[in-house]
Amino acid sequence: MTTDIFFQIVTPDEALARLFDHVPATPRRERLGLDDALGRVTATPLTSPEDSPAFARSAMDGYAVRAADTYGASEGLPAFLTVDGEVPMGAAAQRPVQSGTAHLIHTGGMLPPRADAVVMVEYTQPVDETSIEVLRPAAPGQHVIQAGEDLAAGDALLPAGHQLRAQDLGVLAALGITDIETAVRPVVGVLSSGDEIVPTDAQPAPGQVRDVNATSLSALARQAGAEVREFGVAPDNRAELDRLARTALDTCDLVIISAGSSVSTRDMTADVIGSLGHPGVLAHGIAVKPGKPTIVALAGGKPVFGLPGNPVSAMVVFGLVAVPTIRRLLGAGPANDSAHRRARLSRSLASQTGRIDFVPAALQERDGEWWATPVLGPSNLIATLVRASGLIRIPLDAGGLAEGDWVDVEPF
Amino acid sequence: MTTDIFFQIVTPDEALARLFDHVPATPRRERLGLDDALGRVTATPLTSPEDSPAFARSAMDGYAVRAADTYGASEGLPAFLTVDGEVPMGAAAQRPVQSGTAHLIHTGGMLPPRADAVVMVEYTQPVDETSIEVLRPAAPGQHVIQAGEDLAAGDALLPAGHQLRAQDLGVLAALGITDIETAVRPVVGVLSSGDEIVPTDAQPAPGQVRDVNATSLSALARQAGAEVREFGVAPDNRAELDRLARTALDTCDLVIISAGSSVSTRDMTADVIGSLGHPGVLAHGIAVKPGKPTIVALAGGKPVFGLPGNPVSAMVVFGLVAVPTIRRLLGAGPANDSAHRRARLSRSLASQTGRIDFVPAALQERDGEWWATPVLGPSNLIATLVRASGLIRIPLDAGGLAEGDWVDVEPF
Repeated sequence: MTTDIFFQIVTPDEALARLFDHVPATPRRERLGLDDALGRVTATPLTSPEDSPAFARSAMDGYAVRAADTYGASEGLPAFLTVDGEVPMGAAAQRPVQSGTAHLIHTGGMLPPRADAVVMVEYTQPVDETSIEVLRPAAPGQHVIQAGEDLAAGDALLPAGHQLRAQDLGVLAALGITDIETAVRPVVGVLSSGDEIVPTDAQPAPGQVRDVNATSLSALARQAGAEVREFGVAPDNRAELDRLARTALDTCDLVIISAGSSVSTRDMTADVIGSLGHPGVLAHGIAVKPGKPTIVALAGGKPVFGLPGNPVSAMVVFGLVAVPTIRRLLGAGPANDSAHRRARLSRSLASQTGRIDFVPAALQERDGEWWATPVLGPSNLIATLVRASGLIRIPLDAGGLAEGDWVDVEPF
Repeated sequence: MTTDIFFQIVTPDEALARLFDHVPATPRRERLGLDDALGRVTATPLTSPEDSPAFARSAMDGYAVRAADTYGASEGLPAFLTVDGEVPMGAAAQRPVQSGTAHLIHTGGMLPPRADAVVMVEYTQPVDETSIEVLRPAAPGQHVIQAGEDLAAGDALLPAGHQLRAQDLGVLAALGITDIETAVRPVVGVLSSGDEIVPTDAQPAPGQVRDVNATSLSALARQAGAEVREFGVAPDNRAELDRLARTALDTCDLVIISAGSSVSTRDMTADVIGSLGHPGVLAHGIAVKPGKPTIVALAGGKPVFGLPGNPVSAMVVFGLVAVPTIRRLLGAGPANDSAHRRARLSRSLASQTGRIDFVPAALQERDGEWWATPVLGPSNLIATLVRASGLIRIPLDAGGLAEGDWVDVEPF
């Protein structure tokens, strides 16, 4: 492209490094109950307020015993014990276990005083109503979870910046923590520009198309943990785009402007982004296909991104630069990429070194192996978006890939 | 276990097959705007209401030409064309392209009448203010996206039962579809039982523990697309557990009862579930570790699950039986397992054939390979829950796994 010479192409990581120098990872906080906290991000480290379990409890159904009473017990020479009690569930075991006796105990039951082990019911044999034979010796502590063995008061539970999962909430509930400090969702302002773009609910005239990006990028922003404010489509003049962009910047924590496809709109958008405030544009052009004409900027301490108008490009670039920035504003680390999948490529793909290529693909399982089939065609076809279920990532230094090669596929 | 003989152990798939015979996949519907539809499930198939694009448009920045005017053009013998117009963005191209002429056109611009191809700006050379040389021949249709080429009116977009992604919403927006029929979220009633269990906000007495499962299972249910109604902890008597279970059944679409750890509570829970309505218990005991004492039942046309009290077991079984059932109530197919990851096992693991084993594990990337390290220890320790990030699945017929073996790991 002739415009290349105006770009100082950088990698997405370099663009983000420049931005993050100015964006502290210190979110505002709000207190939330556990029922509202799934997927939210912790704003402080959390430690256990108490020992867990609070009392020594049985890990099995069986008999609470004094281990010394079972030493040497075997099938041939069992230990004989009198059963003179049953540990009630949900109450303290009041009576101690005396030498030569055992108490019936259930999984989770509190170990009675002076008992120090549990014999599984499978390794006992009833003699009569009130006595049993123990067929194996029990070591002290056997099948007992000691007080504080799971967690001691003060033990680290979750770090700050942790995205809360179902089990994390269950653990907090178990420890009596009913509400926690979480990061306030950053507000992302979404604005479109382009002479040919009309809002979704408008009837396009010949030459016009409805806005795709406001809807898809808003959804991606919500998925990444942000709230969204939509600012519509800027009409065709610099003053109006500038006014809308400044309103978005004043009322949001991060602004996304998806530019139209014409050079003049892109230039106008770049110009407006550059004039919003100090320090302005930090990177213009990233080494990514599709997505090269991306702008990463900072104005008034807030990140501003100029994204390509092409719907696939806009989504790819949003994932590369806006999602990590939303996570930073939440105080969270990089997204866990354990959802990425290794798959084999169903046809060869050309690529250039020096840029990261993303290729929409359909994922299919065949004979126990995953295969990625590129969804090809002009990248501005929207049908590509619904047919693809993954994005193949071809790294910066890969020159191309052959059929059957293993590739990394991100969910899409 | 001595109780095995009372169980008719079945695989989770068999238990679900028995249940799904009675549970139609026909959700109630509600109409939602696109901004509220992310992650929701389509209730009807969606087709394109119109051709897209609605007009022939340029896929490149360049010149709209009549292909015949460029035949035989080369660097040595370029075709000479007069530039006598520019296609405005967002408006119909009014003036036709006459033979021997070209119009400047931008990506996304509407092809003018009588033009049938676009020459990329890179393959032209300006001669003066109003004329260019074309250095390569253009075939008819080159760099032109024809009307309806992306989607024709009536083309299938998304099937019913499809969970909506960001790009799906963008495509619907592009086609002017601003709201759609979605499946109403099923309401899941969550109830705990067990003499030793107290609610999260209570201070446990000696021998008591706070409820973990109500919180973690509610979060999993929300994650799977359901709404949740919590019914607390049933106190220690059959009549009260029965009353709460019937209230849950009356007001919800699916009921989850997580039983306490004692045999008596489990038996009482099984008894109550069996008496809620016809046909009652469909499976008691599934071939899964942890999770064997699971109950799958149907009462009054509604699924009822009795889950083990152990927090890890309850989560594993919820994923195996409740999540697919919520998806069925939504009219959605099985969850996409493309988020599963292949990883290598960092130590050997024993397993028995004839059951599916799930082992909580921490996932780490080492030298470009993913490794799964089992988080071991008594399975009723809650710290296991926060330390694990995946569940290793050992299939029904696998006898055990060696260090370095490849395993399938589900996100956890």
